[in-house]
Amino acid sequence: MSRKRPGKQNRRSPFKRRSKPGAAPGTMIVDPQAPKPRVRLIAFGPDEFLETEVEDLEKIAQIRGRFPVIWVNVDGLGDASVLSRLQKIFGLHPLAMEDVVNSHQRPKVESYDGQLFIIARELTVRETCLENDQLAIFVGQGFVISFQEIRGDCFDPVRARIRDRSGQFRSRGPDYLCYTLIDAVVDSYFPTVESLGEKLEAAEESILRRPCEKDLVRLHDLKRDLLLVRRAAWPLREAIGSLIRDRHPLITESTLAYLRDAADHTVQIIDLVETDRELCSDLRDIYLSSVSMRMNQIVKVLTIISTIFIPLTFLAGVYGMNFDPAAGPLSMPELRQPLGYAGFWGVCLLIAVSLLGLFAWLGWLGERSEP
Amino acid sequence: MSRKRPGKQNRRSPFKRRSKPGAAPGTMIVDPQAPKPRVRLIAFGPDEFLETEVEDLEKIAQIRGRFPVIWVNVDGLGDASVLSRLQKIFGLHPLAMEDVVNSHQRPKVESYDGQLFIIARELTVRETCLENDQLAIFVGQGFVISFQEIRGDCFDPVRARIRDRSGQFRSRGPDYLCYTLIDAVVDSYFPTVESLGEKLEAAEESILRRPCEKDLVRLHDLKRDLLLVRRAAWPLREAIGSLIRDRHPLITESTLAYLRDAADHTVQIIDLVETDRELCSDLRDIYLSSVSMRMNQIVKVLTIISTIFIPLTFLAGVYGMNFDPAAGPLSMPELRQPLGYAGFWGVCLLIAVSLLGLFAWLGWLGERSEP
Amino acid sequence: MSRKRPGKQNRRSPFKRRSKPGAAPGTMIVDPQAPKPRVRLIAFGPDEFLETEVEDLEKIAQIRGRFPVIWVNVDGLGDASVLSRLQKIFGLHPLAMEDVVNSHQRPKVESYDGQLFIIARELTVRETCLENDQLAIFVGQGFVISFQEIRGDCFDPVRARIRDRSGQFRSRGPDYLCYTLIDAVVDSYFPTVESLGEKLEAAEESILRRPCEKDLVRLHDLKRDLLLVRRAAWPLREAIGSLIRDRHPLITESTLAYLRDAADHTVQIIDLVETDRELCSDLRDIYLSSVSMRMNQIVKVLTIISTIFIPLTFLAGVYGMNFDPAAGPLSMPELRQPLGYAGFWGVCLLIAVSLLGLFAWLGWLGERSEP
Amino acid sequence: MSRKRPGKQNRRSPFKRRSKPGAAPGTMIVDPQAPKPRVRLIAFGPDEFLETEVEDLEKIAQIRGRFPVIWVNVDGLGDASVLSRLQKIFGLHPLAMEDVVNSHQRPKVESYDGQLFIIARELTVRETCLENDQLAIFVGQGFVISFQEIRGDCFDPVRARIRDRSGQFRSRGPDYLCYTLIDAVVDSYFPTVESLGEKLEAAEESILRRPCEKDLVRLHDLKRDLLLVRRAAWPLREAIGSLIRDRHPLITESTLAYLRDAADHTVQIIDLVETDRELCSDLRDIYLSSVSMRMNQIVKVLTIISTIFIPLTFLAGVYGMNFDPAAGPLSMPELRQPLGYAGFWGVCLLIAVSLLGLFAWLGWLGERSEP
Amino acid sequence: MSRKRPGKQNRRSPFKRRSKPGAAPGTMIVDPQAPKPRVRLIAFGPDEFLETEVEDLEKIAQIRGRFPVIWVNVDGLGDASVLSRLQKIFGLHPLAMEDVVNSHQRPKVESYDGQLFIIARELTVRETCLENDQLAIFVGQGFVISFQEIRGDCFDPVRARIRDRSGQFRSRGPDYLCYTLIDAVVDSYFPTVESLGEKLEAAEESILRRPCEKDLVRLHDLKRDLLLVRRAAWPLREAIGSLIRDRHPLITESTLAYLRDAADHTVQIIDLVETDRELCSDLRDIYLSSVSMRMNQIVKVLTIISTIFIPLTFLAGVYGMNFDPAAGPLSMPELRQPLGYAGFWGVCLLIAVSLLGLFAWLGWLGERSEP
Repeated sequence: MSRKRPGKQNRRSPFKRRSKPGAAPGTMIVDPQAPKPRVRLIAFGPDEFLETEVEDLEKIAQIRGRFPVIWVNVDGLGDASVLSRLQKIFGLHPLAMEDVVNSHQRPKVESYDGQLFIIARELTVRETCLENDQLAIFVGQGFVISFQEIRGDCFDPVRARIRDRSGQFRSRGPDYLCYTLIDAVVDSYFPTVESLGEKLEAAEESILRRPCEKDLVRLHDLKRDLLLVRRAAWPLREAIGSLIRDRHPLITESTLAYLRDAADHTVQIIDLVETDRELCSDLRDIYLSSVSMRMNQIVKVLTIISTIFIPLTFLAGVYGMNFDPAAGPLSMPELRQPLGYAGFWGVCLLIAVSLLGLFAWLGWLGERSEP
Repeated sequence: MSRKRPGKQNRRSPFKRRSKPGAAPGTMIVDPQAPKPRVRLIAFGPDEFLETEVEDLEKIAQIRGRFPVIWVNVDGLGDASVLSRLQKIFGLHPLAMEDVVNSHQRPKVESYDGQLFIIARELTVRETCLENDQLAIFVGQGFVISFQEIRGDCFDPVRARIRDRSGQFRSRGPDYLCYTLIDAVVDSYFPTVESLGEKLEAAEESILRRPCEKDLVRLHDLKRDLLLVRRAAWPLREAIGSLIRDRHPLITESTLAYLRDAADHTVQIIDLVETDRELCSDLRDIYLSSVSMRMNQIVKVLTIISTIFIPLTFLAGVYGMNFDPAAGPLSMPELRQPLGYAGFWGVCLLIAVSLLGLFAWLGWLGERSEP
Repeated sequence: MSRKRPGKQNRRSPFKRRSKPGAAPGTMIVDPQAPKPRVRLIAFGPDEFLETEVEDLEKIAQIRGRFPVIWVNVDGLGDASVLSRLQKIFGLHPLAMEDVVNSHQRPKVESYDGQLFIIARELTVRETCLENDQLAIFVGQGFVISFQEIRGDCFDPVRARIRDRSGQFRSRGPDYLCYTLIDAVVDSYFPTVESLGEKLEAAEESILRRPCEKDLVRLHDLKRDLLLVRRAAWPLREAIGSLIRDRHPLITESTLAYLRDAADHTVQIIDLVETDRELCSDLRDIYLSSVSMRMNQIVKVLTIISTIFIPLTFLAGVYGMNFDPAAGPLSMPELRQPLGYAGFWGVCLLIAVSLLGLFAWLGWLGERSEP
Repeated sequence: MSRKRPGKQNRRSPFKRRSKPGAAPGTMIVDPQAPKPRVRLIAFGPDEFLETEVEDLEKIAQIRGRFPVIWVNVDGLGDASVLSRLQKIFGLHPLAMEDVVNSHQRPKVESYDGQLFIIARELTVRETCLENDQLAIFVGQGFVISFQEIRGDCFDPVRARIRDRSGQFRSRGPDYLCYTLIDAVVDSYFPTVESLGEKLEAAEESILRRPCEKDLVRLHDLKRDLLLVRRAAWPLREAIGSLIRDRHPLITESTLAYLRDAADHTVQIIDLVETDRELCSDLRDIYLSSVSMRMNQIVKVLTIISTIFIPLTFLAGVYGMNFDPAAGPLSMPELRQPLGYAGFWGVCLLIAVSLLGLFAWLGWLGERSEP
Repeated sequence: MSRKRPGKQNRRSPFKRRSKPGAAPGTMIVDPQAPKPRVRLIAFGPDEFLETEVEDLEKIAQIRGRFPVIWVNVDGLGDASVLSRLQKIFGLHPLAMEDVVNSHQRPKVESYDGQLFIIARELTVRETCLENDQLAIFVGQGFVISFQEIRGDCFDPVRARIRDRSGQFRSRGPDYLCYTLIDAVVDSYFPTVESLGEKLEAAEESILRRPCEKDLVRLHDLKRDLLLVRRAAWPLREAIGSLIRDRHPLITESTLAYLRDAADHTVQIIDLVETDRELCSDLRDIYLSSVSMRMNQIVKVLTIISTIFIPLTFLAGVYGMNFDPAAGPLSMPELRQPLGYAGFWGVCLLIAVSLLGLFAWLGWLGERSEP
C-alpha cells in the first residue's frame, strides 16, 4: 500500500530561503548551498562581437560602454561578492537584488530608476520531476544582465543567433535581446506542456481501459505540474502585458510587436493548461465511477451465488434433520419415499432456475460493461 | 473492459509542430506532412470578375492592383517556397507568417504595418471526431489572403455570392470579404454545436432510461468537444470585439454593423456551449447516482434473502444435530414428537413472515424505482 | 427502469433553424412550420386612438405619420412576404430582420440607422414544460413594431392601459411603449420563477422526507428550467443596461427611470435563479447522502443477522457431525451428556447476546436516523 | 424517516406579492395581510426636539419645514391610503412607492428628482428561523422617511441617541440620520452571522464526534441562511459604494467617512459569510466520508466473521455427511478415529488463526479510527 | 469515534466583541478581558534617538514635535483611558479608534483628516493553532502609532534596525517606518505558510501511503488555516495597492518602491495559499477514492471466499440428508459407493478451482494495488 515517490520530496522547497521577517529591505542573503556563479559575457554591435567567460569582474566595468550591447549572464547565485560587485558596476537596485537571491519570486516586471527588472520562471523536467528555476533579467542603457538559479539554460540558440554575423540580431538593442531571452523561456514551456499532455493521454488510456489505483496518483502529480506551469505562465503574461501597455522608454517601437507575439504564446500556454486541468478533473470522475462499477459487479456476483445457494442449503439442512420418521405420519415422511431424493434435486433445480430467471429479468446477467 | 476509441489518438496533436525554443522569431518551419498548397485566386470589382486556380505565383503579382479586390485562398501549408513568395508579393509580416505555419494558434486579430492579420479555427466533424483546423486571414489595401490548413472549406457559398453578378458583393471592399469569411466560419459552428446537442440529448435519453458505463465515456468525449468549440469561439469573440472597438482604418463604417452581428453569433455559440457543459455535469451526477441506486437494489435483494434463510438454516442445523435423545429428557425431545417436523416448518414460516413484515415496514419491498 | 418524459423532446429545438453558413447576411429564411402572421395595429396620441386587426398591410403605410405613436404587433413569423413588406414600410435593417426570423437570438439591444432593435425572450409554461419564445421589438420615430414567435402574449394589460383614456399612457412616446413591452416580459418572469421555486420546495419536501429516484430527475429538469430563465434574464439585463448607459436619442429622459426599474427587476430574477440553483445543488447532495445512508442501514441489518447466526450455524453443524462417539472418549462426548442439548442452546444464547452487546457498543443498534 | 421542520414553510415566500405583469409602473398594490401602518415622527434640530406617534397625517404636513430634520418612521405597509398620503406630502416617486409595497426588493440606492431612495433588508431570527424584512428609506431636503415591513425594529438605540441632548446628533442633517439607519441595519447583521457561526460550530462538533443524518439537514439550513445573509449584504455593499462614488448632493462631505465605515462593515459580513460557506462545504465532505468509513467498518466486520466461519461450517457439514463408513476404506475413515473429533477442532482453530493472521496483515484489525 | 481537538474552541471568536447595533459610531467599548496596554516610545531623527517605556502619557505629548519621527507602540487594548488619551494627543479619528478596539477588522487603508489609518492582521502559531491578531497603524505628520492586540510582536528586528546608528533608517520619515511595520507583518506570513505547506506535505505522505480517518480532519484544519491566511493577505494586498495608487501626501516617492515590493510579497503569499488549497481538495479526493478502494478489496475478499464455500457447503448438506438409502435405488445411492466420499472431495476441488479460475479471469486476484 505504500508507494515510493522518488524525487518528489524536494518539490515544494522553492519558498524556503527568505530574508528574515523584519530585516532591512534590500538585504541580500545568499543561499550557501547554491552553486557558485559562472559569469559569461557577450558584447556585440553591428560590426563588433566579443564572447568570453569572465573571472575578474573588473573587466566588465572596463568593457562597459565600448559596445552597443553587453550581455552578462550569471549562472548560479552562491557568491554574494560577485553579485554585489555586479550591482555596483551597473547600479542595480537593492530591492531587485534581494529578489534575485530569494529565488522564489513570481514572474513580474518592475522599473527602478530607468532600468527594467524582469523575473520569469524556467521549467525543466529533471528525472521525471518538473523543476522550476528563477531567471532574473536587468535591462539598462546598453546592457542586459541575466541571473539564473542553475547552470544549463535554454539560451544556447540565442547565443548562436548572436554569433551568426549574417543575422539581424547584432544591429538591435538590449530591448530586443531581453525579448529574445523571455521568448526563449516561453517557447521552452511548449515541450513541457506537450509532455504533460502526453502523460494525460497515457493516464486517459489507462483509465478508460483498465483503471488502477496508481492512475489517481498520476493525475494528482499531473495536476500539480499543471499548477506549476500555470503559476509560471499566468503572471508572466501579465508582466509582458504591462511591459507592452506602459511603454518603458527602453522598449523600442519595433520590439513591441515581438513582445505582443510572446504575450500571445503565454496565453496559448495558459489555454492548454486550463484545458488539460479540466480533462484531469473529468478523468478523475471517470476513474471513480469505474471503481464504483467494479464494486457493483463484485457485489452482483456475490448476490447471485449467495441468493441461489442459500435456499438450497436450507433445504439440504431440512432433510438432514434427525426427526424420527417413526414418531408419526407427519414426521419427515419424505425421507422414506423412493423418489424423495430425486424430488429434492428437482426442487433445487426449480429454485435455481427461477432465481436465475429473476436476475435475468432484473438485467443482472447482461454483458459486463453494463452496470 | 478495454474499449477501443478509433480516431481519437490524433486528437490532441494540434500543438506538436513548433519552431524550436530560442529560434529567431519569424522563422517559418513547414510541417513536411502537411498537404501541398493549392492556390485559388478570385479578383473582382463592381464590373469585373476573375476566378482562376494559380500555378505560377508571378501571375498574382501581375494582377495585383488591377482589380479593386483580390482574394487569394491557399489550401494546405506544405510548401515553404509558395508561402514565402506570397509573403514577398504582399509584404506580409514574418511574425504573422510564422503563426500561419504553426497551425495551433488561438483565434486573434493583429495589426502589422497597416495590414490586418486574423486567426480563426474551423471545426469539422470527420469520422465522428471533431477536427480543429486553422484559418489565417490577411487583409490589406485591395487584397485578402486566406491560408487554410486543409483542403475543403466552408467558403463555397461565399464564392457563389461573389460570382453572382446581381448581388451587392462585388461593390464592396476587402473588409467586407474578410467579414464574410469570418462569418462563414462562425456560422459553421452552429451545425457542430447542434450535433453535439443531439449527442447530449441521446446520452440523456440513455442515462435516464438505462444507464450503462459507455455513457460516461460519451459524456467525457462530449465535454472534450465542447471545450474545443469553446476554445475556438471564446477568443474569436474577443478578437472580433477588438476589431470593432479599435477601428482599424481598413474596416469601413458599413462593415462594422456586420461585424457586430458576427460577434453576436459567437456569443450565442458560447452561450449554447456553456449550457451544454452544465447539463453534461448534471447528467454525470445523475448517472453516478443511478449506479448507486442499482448497488442499493442488489444489496437489498442479497440482504432480504440472506436474512430470511440464515435463521432457518440454523434451525435446520439444530435438528440435524446428533445429540442422543436417549441421554435424557432435555436431550432433543422434539425429535420424537409426532408434530415436531410440522412444528419446525411452522416456526420457519413464522420467522420468514415476520422478517418480510419487518422489511415491508422498512420500505424495502416498495416499487423498484424507490431507493 | 425506463421513465417516460412526455413533452420534453421538443425542448432543445430553439437553435435548429438557421440561414445556411456562408449565406448572405440579411437573408430571411422563414420557418415553413411557423404559424401565419397576425398583424394588429394600435395607433394613439394624446387625443386619438385606433385599434384594428390589419389584413392589408398597405393600410399601415397610409396611417403612418398620422398618429404620434403606431404600434404594430405581429404574432407568428410564417410568411416572408408580410415581413418584407413591413421591412420596406418602416425601413427596418436586413440584419435585424434576419434575427427576427431566426428565432433563437440572445436578448440584446442594437441600433441600426437611428432605429432601436431589441430582442427579449418570453417564457411560458405549456403542459408542465417551460417554453422560450422570441420577442423582437423595433423602435423608430413614431412607431414600435413587435414580432412574436407565437400567438398569445403577455401584452393584454398593456393594450388595456392604452385603451384607457384617463391614464397618462397616450401622452407618451414610442420609447415609453417599448419600455412597457419589455417590462411586461420581465414581470412575466416572476410567476415563472415562483412556480419553479414551488417545484423546488416540493422536491425538497420529498427529498427530506422520503427520497426516491424520481427526485433527481425532477432536480435535473428544474435546473434546466432555471438555466433557461437565466439565459433569458442575464443578457436582457445587460441589454437594458446598455440602453440606459448609451442614451440612444429615441429614449427620452423621463423613460430612463422606468428602464432602470426594469433593469432592477431582471437583477432580482437573476438573484432568485442563482439562489435556487445553489439550493438545487445542495438538495442533490442531500439526496445522494440519503441514498448512502439507506445503503448503510441495509448492510447493517445484513451484517447483524449474518454475524449472529453464522457462528451458531457452525455450532449446530458441529453437533450434526457423524464422528462415532464409540471411537474414543474424545470423540464427541457432548452428544451423550443429558444436558448437552440444553448446553448447546445456552452457548448459542451467550454468543448471540455477546454479539448484540458488541453491536450496541459500536452504536449500530441506535435509532434509525443515525448512520 | 420523515422529519418535521416547523416554521420553514413560510420561508421562501418573500417574492409572492407582485403587481400583475403588464400593470402600469408605479401601481401600489397593498398586501391585505400586511400589518396596519403605525407612524412615528421624530423632528429635531440643534435646539429643538419633538417625538410623537402620528394618527392624523396632516399634522406631518404642518410640521414639515419647521424643523431642520423630520424623521417619519412607518411600521407595517397594510394601508394604501396612509402610504399615498405620505407620498403626496413629501413628493415621493411612484416607482419608488411601488417598490416599498412590493417588499421583496434587492438592496439598492436610487435617485429620483433630487431625493434618495434606499432599500435594505433587515434580518431577524424568529423561532429558530431567519426572517428577512424590507426597510425602505427616502431622504430629501430636511426629511427622512423609513418604511418597515414589520413592527419591532433595530432603531431604538438611534432614537435614544437623538433624544440625548448632549450628543452631536441633533446638529447633523438628514444624510447623517440616513447613514445611522443603514448602519444600525448593517450592525444588526453581526449577531445574526455570529449565531450562524455558532450553529456551524455545533454542527462541526457533532460531525467530527458522531455524525448523524440530521447534521446534513442542519448544514443545508445553515447554507440557506448564509445565502440569505449574503443576498442582503452583497447588494447593500454595492448600494453604499455607489452612494459614496456618485456623491449625491444630499450627502455632505462629513457623512462620507461614516458611509465608508458602513461599507467596510458590509464587506466584513460578506467575508464572514463566504468563509462559513466554505467551511459548510468542507463539513459536508467530512460527513459524507465519515458515512463511507462507517460502511467500510460494517462491511469489514461482516467479512471477517463470514470468511472465518464459512470454511468451518463447510467442514462441519462434511463430517455430518452420511457416507457409509462401511462402504470402503476411503469412505469417511476419519469418523472412526478416536482423535478425529479433536482433530476437527484443531483444523478449525488452524483455519481461524490463519485467516485472522491474514486480516491482521491486511491491516483490517487495526484501531477503529483507521479505514 | 470521538476526537478531542484541544485549543480549537477559541478559534472562531475573532468577531464576538462589537459595539451594540445602533450605537453611536466612534464609540470605543473596550474588551474587559483584553490585556492592559503597554506603551513603548521610540523617537529618532538623523542624529537623535530615544527609546523608552512610557508610564505617563503626558510625556509623549511633551516629546512630540521634538523629534522628526515618533513611534508609539501600544501592546494590549484593555484600558480605554490610555487609548482616549493617545487619541487626544495625536488627534486620531473616533471611527478609526472604534476599529482599533473592535479587533476583528479586515485589513484596510483609510485616510482621515490627513492621517493614514492602516489595519493588518498578525498571524502567529500558538500551541498548534493559528492565531490572528489585529495590528492598527496611524501615520501622521512626524509620528507613527501602532496598536497591537497582544504582547509579543514581530517588530524586534525593526527596533534593532532603528537603534543601529549606521543604517539609513534614521534619516527616513514616518512613511518608511510605516512601510517597515507592514513589511514585517507580511514577511511573517512566509514562515506560517511554509509550516502549513509542511503539514500539507505530511498529510499527502500519509494519504498516499496509508490513509486514515484523521487525515481528513487534518486537511479540514489545514484548509481552515489557509482560509485564515488568505483572509489576512488578500485585503492587505488591496490595501497596499490603494496606498500606492492613491498617493497619499504622507507617502514619499522613495517609499513607493518599497510598498510595491511589499504588495508583491502579499501576492506571493496568496499564490502559495491558492496552490495549497487546490492541492488540499485534490488530496481529499484521493483520500476518498482510497477509502472506496479499500471497501472494494474487503468486499472482494468476502465475495471470493463466500462464493467458493457456499456451493461446497450446500453439497456437504446434501450428503448429510437422511433420505433412507433403503427406500429405493434413486434414494441417495452415492452414500454406499466405496469411492463416494473421495468423489465428493473431487467435486469440491473442481468447483473451487473453476471459481478461482473465473475470478482470475475477472482480474480479481491481481496485485493488491489494482481495484
